[in-house]
Amino acid sequence: MSFELIILGSSSALPTSKRSTAAHLLTMNERFFLIDCGEGTQIQLRKNKLSPARINHIFISHLHGDHVFGLFGLISSMGLMGRLADLHLYGPSGLEDLLQTHLAFFGMPPFQLVFHIAADQEFVYEDSKVCVRALKLKHRKETFGYLFKEKEKPLNIDKATIDKYNLGVEDIRKIKQGNDHQTVDGQIIPNTQLTLPPLVPRSYAYISDTAFLPQIAEKLKGTTLLFHESTFLEKDMELAKDTFHSTAGQAAEIARLAEAETLLIGHFSTRYKEEESFLEEAKKIFPNTIAVNDGDRFSLEPYRQLPTGN
Amino acid sequence: MSFELIILGSSSALPTSKRSTAAHLLTMNERFFLIDCGEGTQIQLRKNKLSPARINHIFISHLHGDHVFGLFGLISSMGLMGRLADLHLYGPSGLEDLLQTHLAFFGMPPFQLVFHIAADQEFVYEDSKVCVRALKLKHRKETFGYLFKEKEKPLNIDKATIDKYNLGVEDIRKIKQGNDHQTVDGQIIPNTQLTLPPLVPRSYAYISDTAFLPQIAEKLKGTTLLFHESTFLEKDMELAKDTFHSTAGQAAEIARLAEAETLLIGHFSTRYKEEESFLEEAKKIFPNTIAVNDGDRFSLEPYRQLPTGN
Repeated sequence: MSFELIILGSSSALPTSKRSTAAHLLTMNERFFLIDCGEGTQIQLRKNKLSPARINHIFISHLHGDHVFGLFGLISSMGLMGRLADLHLYGPSGLEDLLQTHLAFFGMPPFQLVFHIAADQEFVYEDSKVCVRALKLKHRKETFGYLFKEKEKPLNIDKATIDKYNLGVEDIRKIKQGNDHQTVDGQIIPNTQLTLPPLVPRSYAYISDTAFLPQIAEKLKGTTLLFHESTFLEKDMELAKDTFHSTAGQAAEIARLAEAETLLIGHFSTRYKEEESFLEEAKKIFPNTIAVNDGDRFSLEPYRQLPTGN
Repeated sequence: MSFELIILGSSSALPTSKRSTAAHLLTMNERFFLIDCGEGTQIQLRKNKLSPARINHIFISHLHGDHVFGLFGLISSMGLMGRLADLHLYGPSGLEDLLQTHLAFFGMPPFQLVFHIAADQEFVYEDSKVCVRALKLKHRKETFGYLFKEKEKPLNIDKATIDKYNLGVEDIRKIKQGNDHQTVDGQIIPNTQLTLPPLVPRSYAYISDTAFLPQIAEKLKGTTLLFHESTFLEKDMELAKDTFHSTAGQAAEIARLAEAETLLIGHFSTRYKEEESFLEEAKKIFPNTIAVNDGDRFSLEPYRQLPTGN
């Protein structure tokens, strides 16, 4: 299954000539998950050669303009493009009211909007391969992060063992369930010798906007790719506190506590000219940090858990 | 007085990777007039190195999304940037309701919004040097075009005549009012021999969106720079009629009837790949036509009326 994150907007409240406001697109095979939708998201989609028509699910963190002002144009364009498929929207309870009021003024689109209210630690989306959990953050308005995760994969049989032990269909079914195998001469072959280490469920967490919230780390344990907002530098820690945002160092601290594999930071305040400082501060605490730019793509390749001791 | 038009968005309903939705910026000396405000206008302003803080007057043609969805982000950003000055908005009567409803949800900005309802052929704005007239167009929603025009300039005295006829302050004042001059020996010097031909009042007309409306031409007589929407090609005349839009040929016909100096066409439907066809069709009827792109700038230099016969 393909698993790719595309950064559509990496600025905070104010867009710049190089950074749009918040929007990420996560593709997991044929699933196109849009996460936040700042002004100009539909334009960013087009610049990145992504069709708005493919998006069926939009996750909104909170109802501040820099995270939602692109919804109006995107929904309008989807209608103009002849969309008929339902569009699912996930977010705080006010989202439906906002959009219904807006659409009452500009006209309803020719497709259905289906609203899903997020709640802390609840799954907001689930299918056979993917689940999405909402995580309550700490901001000036009700805000949710989202954790997108592949479901646990069934064990893969090591094909070389099929001939070696002359395995039948029923044997294989049981081995895939985790059972050991007994040969015709009574020898017990442990399951680990018959199967490949399982594919690790890949995950992406989107944590924006929030004050420093160390207790969130436990819920992000082992996240493959963690995006954490990094609005301020450490020197403006007080400003971060006052506005319920995080510093680059705090974002890195969450990644360290969560034992994430890779940390992405963004949502930089336009007050700073020295953007490399964000990366420097974060890397001191969590070396595997990347500062994102609009248009960046991060592809997560499937990988297997290495057997313990290797 | 400087007089420059900057195209911020030249697409119609759907933005493309190269064309934003409708927005023009007209600068007349220190006046920054924003005309329409499609999604991403604040980003287009930044890309063109224009500060949103300088805009005090926004003229809205009509309340379709591709002409107004950028207002939400622009107003929000103006607030975040600490604006305190009043912001004047001109447009159809629903504009205030739209923005007040929106701001009730997202919070009022720290500055005052002053609404001015447009009415056909009435001045919506006037100061010592500039006036702006609203012109009712013919679209699916109440829509206004806007004609921005310099006021008539006082006559400029030809400086060489001051010494030649030994003119005093009072003489000059009278000559500037259009009077002839009587020399001490009783000779009458006609005013035209004492003054330079007057500077022609420059004008810019923004006509979008509208069905073909030939009677508007009379009100645009002699416009220096005329922007007229050109959503469709002639082959789709029926579609233009049905949707209350114009073809490239119809835009050119308005320019011809109005005896405009230069015609700008834009607001092209994204259905066409062959954008040069718009220009070809228009030029057949009105040769001095330019098809606009985002970022284009048109500077109108002051010029004097040539004496009749030259």
